Amino acid sequence: MNPEQAYLELVRLSRDETRLSSCLDLLEWDEEVAMPRGGVEHRAEQMAILAGLVHDRGTDPRYDELLSTVEASSLVSDAESPQAVNVRVLRRSFDRECRMPRRLVEESARVTALASQAWAQARERDDFKTFAPWLERVFALAREEADAVGYVGERYQAFLDEYEPGLTLAQLQALFRRLEAALVPLANSVRVERPPPATDVLVREFALERQPVFAREVAAALGFDLECGRLDVGQHPFCTIIGPGDIRIVLRYYPHDFARGFFALLHETGHALYDQALDPAQYGTPMGEAASPALHESQSRLWENLVGRSPGFWRHVYPQLLKAFPEPLRDVSMETVRGAVNRVVPGPIRAQADEVTYDLHIIIRFELERALLGGDLRGADLPGAWAELYQRHLGVKPADDRTGCLQDGHWSEGMIGYFPTYTLGNVYAAQLFAAAERAVGPLDEAFAAGDFRTLSRWLGEQVHRHGRRYTAAALIERVTGSAPEPSALIASLSHRYRSAK
Amino acid sequence: MNPEQAYLELVRLSRDETRLSSCLDLLEWDEEVAMPRGGVEHRAEQMAILAGLVHDRGTDPRYDELLSTVEASSLVSDAESPQAVNVRVLRRSFDRECRMPRRLVEESARVTALASQAWAQARERDDFKTFAPWLERVFALAREEADAVGYVGERYQAFLDEYEPGLTLAQLQALFRRLEAALVPLANSVRVERPPPATDVLVREFALERQPVFAREVAAALGFDLECGRLDVGQHPFCTIIGPGDIRIVLRYYPHDFARGFFALLHETGHALYDQALDPAQYGTPMGEAASPALHESQSRLWENLVGRSPGFWRHVYPQLLKAFPEPLRDVSMETVRGAVNRVVPGPIRAQADEVTYDLHIIIRFELERALLGGDLRGADLPGAWAELYQRHLGVKPADDRTGCLQDGHWSEGMIGYFPTYTLGNVYAAQLFAAAERAVGPLDEAFAAGDFRTLSRWLGEQVHRHGRRYTAAALIERVTGSAPEPSALIASLSHRYRSAK
Repeated sequence: MNPEQAYLELVRLSRDETRLSSCLDLLEWDEEVAMPRGGVEHRAEQMAILAGLVHDRGTDPRYDELLSTVEASSLVSDAESPQAVNVRVLRRSFDRECRMPRRLVEESARVTALASQAWAQARERDDFKTFAPWLERVFALAREEADAVGYVGERYQAFLDEYEPGLTLAQLQALFRRLEAALVPLANSVRVERPPPATDVLVREFALERQPVFAREVAAALGFDLECGRLDVGQHPFCTIIGPGDIRIVLRYYPHDFARGFFALLHETGHALYDQALDPAQYGTPMGEAASPALHESQSRLWENLVGRSPGFWRHVYPQLLKAFPEPLRDVSMETVRGAVNRVVPGPIRAQADEVTYDLHIIIRFELERALLGGDLRGADLPGAWAELYQRHLGVKPADDRTGCLQDGHWSEGMIGYFPTYTLGNVYAAQLFAAAERAVGPLDEAFAAGDFRTLSRWLGEQVHRHGRRYTAAALIERVTGSAPEPSALIASLSHRYRSAK
Repeated sequence: MNPEQAYLELVRLSRDETRLSSCLDLLEWDEEVAMPRGGVEHRAEQMAILAGLVHDRGTDPRYDELLSTVEASSLVSDAESPQAVNVRVLRRSFDRECRMPRRLVEESARVTALASQAWAQARERDDFKTFAPWLERVFALAREEADAVGYVGERYQAFLDEYEPGLTLAQLQALFRRLEAALVPLANSVRVERPPPATDVLVREFALERQPVFAREVAAALGFDLECGRLDVGQHPFCTIIGPGDIRIVLRYYPHDFARGFFALLHETGHALYDQALDPAQYGTPMGEAASPALHESQSRLWENLVGRSPGFWRHVYPQLLKAFPEPLRDVSMETVRGAVNRVVPGPIRAQADEVTYDLHIIIRFELERALLGGDLRGADLPGAWAELYQRHLGVKPADDRTGCLQDGHWSEGMIGYFPTYTLGNVYAAQLFAAAERAVGPLDEAFAAGDFRTLSRWLGEQVHRHGRRYTAAALIERVTGSAPEPSALIASLSHRYRSAK
């Protein structure tokens, strides 16, 4: 087989594997959105079987043969060509996949399907005890996985390699230290200089049945194509790509906390816009995938915060909001709403945190998951350790486990080491947004005019269309002129939260 | 390997194959209920890949080895034992599956996924022309399938073998002849003796948002376990088993046609009650499956008609209906509603047909699909042939293709030869219901008291729990004392529609 033929066959293999794997994504979406409770054990078995088959495909020895043929050819001589990118990333995935035992792959799929349900029920009932054994099992499997795939330094690195390839634990820790050093004093001074209003005007009754209708309108206005996607209600917000033309946002709404549902919408729409902008012709190959989970979070955090908390955005959205929810907003001006969505108040919930204290929530999770993974913290001891870190970093005490260590579903889904991608996303988002404004001019007026296309087109051109051509770090450097580093984030937060008194 | 070990391994193989196949069922459910339009091409590829993998499993040569070992042992000496039943049915499935080329399996999955969407859009737009080529493709694949699996006589027999194993085309034709000879004069005389009211009181506005709420209540009252199932809205009504503990009913509601949505609910609930009564411990083996598609339809038709049109049922349901929909029923008595749901009027729509003329709709479809399969009728000529047969058998003319040859989605889904199962279901249902009343006494008072358990318990004991232990025909004979034959159906219809003037 010549290299050209080998490359085509490689693409075919990769595409088929991705399609099969996308069936798992649908099963996961369904588990969160539709599946009746009685279906959970069967679902876990379905996931285990499919995960095993995806693994079989991902470790097919033909990959090795085909990759070797193409790697030795001139097809990969330009490192930025689709061929070179696809071969490079597929080689990495294949090697990693081959180190994973099939039994572990099946078991992880089965256990996380069950653990997710156990988490949802434990949170509903504020009953950490029933979840603790699942947490132990998930972390035990994660340890096995790290040991199987290998890592430099400590086990946590194995997951960083997956969620942000190229990033070392030491770099991440340095980033966290620098952010903490800047954000803690910033949060303190904002609290003194701009004390938040005593009551939050968005903590009023916003009719539950109207929130999804409003969410659809806003998602569409931001550019989400509803012919190629949908919005649903689930246990917790997420966005998933089932395939080209089928991107799904899942949200949860709260009758007395409008902002919680609404900013989750903006966040997930940010993810969805990335997924909808990927090239469908490249589907099933690295060139048709997002650069990294952390870069994906840069898009969600960008739309959530840099768009969603801007004056222009609210000039555009406030009249629509008022029309959809006239009762709770009858005595509330646009400026008051904007003040409410820009309050800086340390609180117990990550997903509701303001931009300034948000990364402190991530630091807490990073420390805890490292300790759980390393075996320094037992699952059963999580609530105490959680409370202690919240006290230390944010000065708050969660009222219960539901708003404490049971608030996030990531660990139950096996997403260990994922939390840092949010902070990386914040860092990248600030760099990208500044670069966008340097390139196309200030965006606030555009937002006020309902023009979100200028921004999304720039992102599509600079970021989305490249798939995995560059690592996230290389892409950020290429697009913004600087390697990833937090000064743009710190500057953006200082500027917006200190000066705009 | 000794026969006991071989049997256990066989069960494991079969269970894994079923679990994998159940992922396809979820993809199909999702395509009908949730998938955005843009996702259809990807969905077709997902289905093709999964169908191919299910086929690989179903033709695994280990089946043959294991089956041979067990077949030669004393484990199967009692033909009614679970071992004997499972081995007998698995042998049959394996042999049939091995005759199917893998390419054809993948292609059929792909094409029917696309054809279903094409059908839904064509129906929406009343645009048969765009659907005609899909119809041709589906029937061409069906011809290939029949030729691959083999048959005695004509190709249609290959599908009867699947939907009602043991039934010959000649027997089916004889059944249709006998029914037609009885039903046509019955319909005529009912029309003379009990002319339907000029207007249908259920063709009024029944608030669309309240219909699903009411449907849930009624499904639950009939015994559908909502912890192990759900109700959704889709293009057309169906019921699907995703797995034990996860049985899903899909319905469609009409604001100006309450009966259409409501009787579909009763129909699908009948299916769901069968599925929920199957033994979960036997899941993934023939002992945990319904006896045949035709027997499945006997359950849906039984609940739809013999329960759902009975006086007792309406004594129980009418007060609830009145509470849920006070406006359209303000001047309508229970007797009037019962009259409305028991009108005998030939019409163009199968799913809305009364019990007396229903089987004539099936005869029409049977003739047309035989002609399409045999190549005597071209897809493009279907609308004309359809109109002609409706004129001949029912004396009605469909106003358009939407209410004519585009009304049913079965063919687009590749369900060719399925329609006769409805008539077989009617025949079996009448026999079973008569046997139930012989065993437990008249049921009408029980229904009036909201007791549906007496009937469902009897069905569970006599029918559901046996899985595929008996063929449908053997089961009917065993339970009712007579082989399948239409006299109970004819007697039931004559009694109910002629005497109850």
